[in-house]
Amino acid sequence: MTRVPGSELASLVRAVTRPDHDRDALADRYARARWTGLAEPGDADAGRLVAAVGAARAIDLAAAASASELADVAGGSFEDAVARWQPRLRTLDTALHLRQGARFGARLVVPGDPEWPVGVDDLGDHAPPALWVRGRAELLGGLDRSIAIVGARAATGYGEHVTIEAASGLVDRGFAIVSGAAFGIDGAAHRAALASGGATVAFLAGGVDRFYPSAHETLLTRIVERGAVVSEVPCGVAPTKWRFLQRNRLIAAASRATVVVEAGWRSGSLNTAGHAAQLGRPLGAVPGPVTSSASSGCHRLIREYDAVCVTSAQEMAELVDPAASTLPTRETSSPARTRVLDALGRTGQDVDRLAATAGMAVDAVRAELGMLELDGLVVQGPTGWRRAAG
Amino acid sequence: MTRVPGSELASLVRAVTRPDHDRDALADRYARARWTGLAEPGDADAGRLVAAVGAARAIDLAAAASASELADVAGGSFEDAVARWQPRLRTLDTALHLRQGARFGARLVVPGDPEWPVGVDDLGDHAPPALWVRGRAELLGGLDRSIAIVGARAATGYGEHVTIEAASGLVDRGFAIVSGAAFGIDGAAHRAALASGGATVAFLAGGVDRFYPSAHETLLTRIVERGAVVSEVPCGVAPTKWRFLQRNRLIAAASRATVVVEAGWRSGSLNTAGHAAQLGRPLGAVPGPVTSSASSGCHRLIREYDAVCVTSAQEMAELVDPAASTLPTRETSSPARTRVLDALGRTGQDVDRLAATAGMAVDAVRAELGMLELDGLVVQGPTGWRRAAG
Repeated sequence: MTRVPGSELASLVRAVTRPDHDRDALADRYARARWTGLAEPGDADAGRLVAAVGAARAIDLAAAASASELADVAGGSFEDAVARWQPRLRTLDTALHLRQGARFGARLVVPGDPEWPVGVDDLGDHAPPALWVRGRAELLGGLDRSIAIVGARAATGYGEHVTIEAASGLVDRGFAIVSGAAFGIDGAAHRAALASGGATVAFLAGGVDRFYPSAHETLLTRIVERGAVVSEVPCGVAPTKWRFLQRNRLIAAASRATVVVEAGWRSGSLNTAGHAAQLGRPLGAVPGPVTSSASSGCHRLIREYDAVCVTSAQEMAELVDPAASTLPTRETSSPARTRVLDALGRTGQDVDRLAATAGMAVDAVRAELGMLELDGLVVQGPTGWRRAAG
Repeated sequence: MTRVPGSELASLVRAVTRPDHDRDALADRYARARWTGLAEPGDADAGRLVAAVGAARAIDLAAAASASELADVAGGSFEDAVARWQPRLRTLDTALHLRQGARFGARLVVPGDPEWPVGVDDLGDHAPPALWVRGRAELLGGLDRSIAIVGARAATGYGEHVTIEAASGLVDRGFAIVSGAAFGIDGAAHRAALASGGATVAFLAGGVDRFYPSAHETLLTRIVERGAVVSEVPCGVAPTKWRFLQRNRLIAAASRATVVVEAGWRSGSLNTAGHAAQLGRPLGAVPGPVTSSASSGCHRLIREYDAVCVTSAQEMAELVDPAASTLPTRETSSPARTRVLDALGRTGQDVDRLAATAGMAVDAVRAELGMLELDGLVVQGPTGWRRAAG
């Protein structure tokens, strides 16, 4: 039996979702809020169980059923999962998470909502059960036209310059900019998107109540006002290294393509890039001086991971839409043309001499001279053919 | 009937080859010397005719036979070829070319000689009939261990720096450096190879008697002393645009791999790169700042022509010998390790609390703590587990 939250819990859920949800929808949302606090990000056992029986029944089963009963309804083994979930179930306080969320004006967005970023569904069992969102949650529904720009915290002036050009150029082309609000490239990407009047979405590793890094308080406040700040963990949950790594999978999955602007040899952005590649998302890397360690991770992505070398916003946009590629320029030179032009000088020569100099047949030289004359590149004077002046 | 050069011509041929050649070898070499003056570089009809009947008979036929007679012996059509060759045959002075070659200490190297760079045979009918060489002709026989470093004449300080590091690093790894003696990248590559005591070979578009560019007179003189300067056209022949383009095919074919260090969007080095790709030779391009137009051609090669992004001499050497690749570093982190480390603090915690914090099973936390303790990363004190100091 699926448990419907009591009236107090129901109003807490309503405060972070929509007021008009019916009982089943409220039960599902409450259960998903519980899952965001119970399972660590990327817990595939949780995903499998929710997929099999729905979030509400899944949370009841997780609390009361044995590992073998869970295996009966969802297949596979749940021994490890039950052992993982038990310690947390004893202290999990979803009412607190909902209250905190409401206090910070957060929305709880679940799969199927118009605000759900459909790209994350490609994570399968590793997809989050719900997302906590501050700001313009509706932007998440438009992330099918977005590009993630990520990179080193220790960015150089070069990297920040390229990021600003890229983000504003992509905004001009109608893309939202997704990133992780970190120092360096991430921050520059969000800032440039905001400055260009574009949409930008920041995915955090901790709860949306605590802005991390704290020095980006002002930036994240502006993103909440004009973009969206998103997390898969409830308010009050700290960002940990594990959650940063899992947050990276959300950035890669939510956006249509990922671009790494600068990255050291072991940068965390290579992890985001790895998720993008694993998901089959287009992956771009911006080259830089080989003498700069801040670009070494990008060169590694190009060399070892088949990332596309991208040098401009246009080329980044082409990651998503190759048809937008600029047309190749027309080739006007030919071997014959080159050789006749080589043979011509400023003083006139007859066709026989030109043919000997160019190593070409007399007729071929004559034909080429005709075309060059049409193009205004040669003139025929009293002493023969010569290059036109200028 | 194959014509044997008269005694004066024979001694001229001997002066630029080996004194101990027999009559057939002299006739072949004389004929090949004639072909270097008769056909423009890359003339596939000449190559086809020489391949069919040998150089000596081919030159006789070119002078006396009709196009249909040539087609009878070599297949295909020779109408264009005969028309091309006729104007030049009237003035071709091979004795002069041989005399000039001898005067400049040039050697005439032909296919099959130990000094022949076997890579150029991959050009098929487009291969040169012979090469004029000044300096240490024997180096050409060792070009199966060489890398071509080419690039923009208008190189930047960055490009020259990278070139110098690359060329000296490749010399240290036993590679000869092949290039085109142009300003910028080419010159830096030759200079760095010489400075590192390595072998270097310059391919010129004009005859080896005239050093081009003339401002590289000193550099080319040094290359003649300690390396080799090579051309497929006889002494006295001017470098033309066509011959530069064809010279590029020799650079690509003679070396085992081609690396472009800097190149503008329409740089001539892209032509060399194109030849390398067409020949199936490994092609590398050095990335640079996307804000530098001097690197735009390199980025284009990586994006559009599948050039390998190379950032060091080691990576350039791996183009030729992928087995020389450095081994990937061992991965020591795991999800469990990361999450337990995330959960640990400077004050002690018991295993149950760590499990709840990490979202992991108690047993799994205990196992991971054991390994972390072995690695000296955690310690167990009176209040529980904590991170080791430092």
